[in-house]
Amino acid sequence: MNLPRGYRYAATYAGIRSEQRDDIALIVPDSPAAIAAVFTRNLVQAAPIRISRKHLKASKGRVAAVLINAGNANCATRTGERVALASCKAVAKELRTKPKYVIPASTGVIGVELDPTLLINAIPDLVARLSPDAFEAVAQAMLTTDTRLKTSYDELQFRGHTVRIAGMTKGAGMIHPKMATTLGFVMTDADIAPKLLREILLSAVDRSYNALTVDGDTSTNDMVALIANGASGFDPGRKHRSVLQDSITRVMESLARQIAADAEGARKLIIVRAAGFKSYEDASRVARSVANSLLVKTAIAGSDPNWGRVLAAAGYAGVDFDPSKVDIYLQDVQVCRAGLAASFDDAELKQKLDQSEVDVRIVLEGRSRPEARFFTCDLTEGYIQINASYRT
Amino acid sequence: MNLPRGYRYAATYAGIRSEQRDDIALIVPDSPAAIAAVFTRNLVQAAPIRISRKHLKASKGRVAAVLINAGNANCATRTGERVALASCKAVAKELRTKPKYVIPASTGVIGVELDPTLLINAIPDLVARLSPDAFEAVAQAMLTTDTRLKTSYDELQFRGHTVRIAGMTKGAGMIHPKMATTLGFVMTDADIAPKLLREILLSAVDRSYNALTVDGDTSTNDMVALIANGASGFDPGRKHRSVLQDSITRVMESLARQIAADAEGARKLIIVRAAGFKSYEDASRVARSVANSLLVKTAIAGSDPNWGRVLAAAGYAGVDFDPSKVDIYLQDVQVCRAGLAASFDDAELKQKLDQSEVDVRIVLEGRSRPEARFFTCDLTEGYIQINASYRT
Repeated sequence: MNLPRGYRYAATYAGIRSEQRDDIALIVPDSPAAIAAVFTRNLVQAAPIRISRKHLKASKGRVAAVLINAGNANCATRTGERVALASCKAVAKELRTKPKYVIPASTGVIGVELDPTLLINAIPDLVARLSPDAFEAVAQAMLTTDTRLKTSYDELQFRGHTVRIAGMTKGAGMIHPKMATTLGFVMTDADIAPKLLREILLSAVDRSYNALTVDGDTSTNDMVALIANGASGFDPGRKHRSVLQDSITRVMESLARQIAADAEGARKLIIVRAAGFKSYEDASRVARSVANSLLVKTAIAGSDPNWGRVLAAAGYAGVDFDPSKVDIYLQDVQVCRAGLAASFDDAELKQKLDQSEVDVRIVLEGRSRPEARFFTCDLTEGYIQINASYRT
Repeated sequence: MNLPRGYRYAATYAGIRSEQRDDIALIVPDSPAAIAAVFTRNLVQAAPIRISRKHLKASKGRVAAVLINAGNANCATRTGERVALASCKAVAKELRTKPKYVIPASTGVIGVELDPTLLINAIPDLVARLSPDAFEAVAQAMLTTDTRLKTSYDELQFRGHTVRIAGMTKGAGMIHPKMATTLGFVMTDADIAPKLLREILLSAVDRSYNALTVDGDTSTNDMVALIANGASGFDPGRKHRSVLQDSITRVMESLARQIAADAEGARKLIIVRAAGFKSYEDASRVARSVANSLLVKTAIAGSDPNWGRVLAAAGYAGVDFDPSKVDIYLQDVQVCRAGLAASFDDAELKQKLDQSEVDVRIVLEGRSRPEARFFTCDLTEGYIQINASYRT
């Protein structure tokens, strides 16, 4: 895929991780670009989140660089803000810009002091490495327990103009909706004013990152940012907004699905759809409740068509509905009709549930609208193994 | 321990479970007793829950028998209410009472028709077996994936009167607060009027079953009942209420702790305490959020003092507090002071976390009141193994 024009990237090893693997990275638009971002809603917010918020405000949504580090969340530490600021200053100095145009993002362990000299010493080399081709190197550097690179691309044609979009994300555990979950950066070379950029971001996040749940935990460091540098020379304005909006939503949805599919220990991506409830909000609440149910997630890990757990999870979603009007489908096989067991071939369905993507659909009164979707994954022994010993 | 006077018990195998193990049981006070019960708040309610509610209302809180079956939840089935009613009738006929004085309770798989002849054919034999000594046999019969019998006893002296209390419960997975979680039956030979009995139950459940979380899922079949037959000849009235209240709360708290300690795959009981927040409700919300965090539960499974996860879970509890004023203790070792890492001996604390009971304490501004407590367990590979193949 072709990358958006006018961006350079770099990644290197600063010594933050114990293993020798890139742990610091930069995304740099050739000229200051528009940026919109959403942040974790956790009350406990890491220093880079607080600094990013401040910088976004002070810069009025303009950005010269995004500085990412993995291996240390720079959260709940004595020196957190000082370290984040010092690293922004070091980047600003090298790029001849102001610190407020640098957005810091960190991921890793909480509560361990981050040595600022590691960052500061690495930054000149990092800036020297900047290149239009290092997009994947950055995507790789920010991974933690992820097992796969997570990127997504799109390209649009507007009357002779080509607009490109490229996104990267990191995932794994500690992911929950109603948050700007995990780290995600989506770049485009469209020319989009900050206000419209923010509208596009909020709408896209709602259908992607906020429809994603792995373990119900929300991190102190999550952020998703959308950057537009205008290098394509094309301003979609309000007129072409919806086409661009759809494209950015698709890119973010793809990133969210990749996170669910590669969640800690996950073997299967689960897509939960709820339809026919009174409102989109009700449908979303039902889908979320089912997607969060450990009993549903373990049943699917075992390819067990235990639809009673789906019905029970819908039942405690806090939504008012008549359980005797609920149909449930697993892999498009009806397993529950009007709140009661439907007849289906158990062995055949078990085979279908062995696939790497599992569809769970809860339909009220046969209605297909409004439909809400949630992405999650099965819960396996691997999740436990990874999380019982992440810190030590 | 001495059992409360004036109760008989029986259990037998009716053929509901595939393995030959008692799956049907009776609790029968010698004369109609007062009963109070709380039920699941899941919108999807099993037939026995609906029938029990009706019977409690029609009988004005009097009970002649509790009929329990395991192996089939009698939920989301075509014939659910008919089966539950037919079994109540069969019991009533044998005991020469009315069906409305019989309370049915079921646990097991959802969505599979329960053959009423299995129940009805077993009931005459069940009634014939009734004996004051079969308390533990009933406690055993209602277990599903539990690995241990869960009972608790107490005895009180009131000016020459001896009052006894005995409780039994089943647990395992699908347990969450704000519900009358799981099946629990507590019998006493005190003489308590239905209204007071209900007050005592609600207060005791609040501090026990409703402070218990295993996986955040809530069942369609949960109920906890408190039965008082007056066989001790002692009416505590309002005067001695608090002593009796405390005793029943202790019994229920013990049952709740046993459920958490024996939750599916659990190796450790976790007691989460939150103190110093604005209100008891806020403290309870923080304790619940931490107790529900999969990342906290897996960290403790691995004896990993990862207090950052505790702080993060407190941060998304939806409670307003200043994270920089939070202290966190694991096994009474301070790991976080004023929102920052405290210095502690990592190896020593890891050893302490290997114990079968783990204490997690979140303290705001050094204040010890109000304190809320939650019981939960570590999350292990065993939970996954059990729940990935429960149905099949």
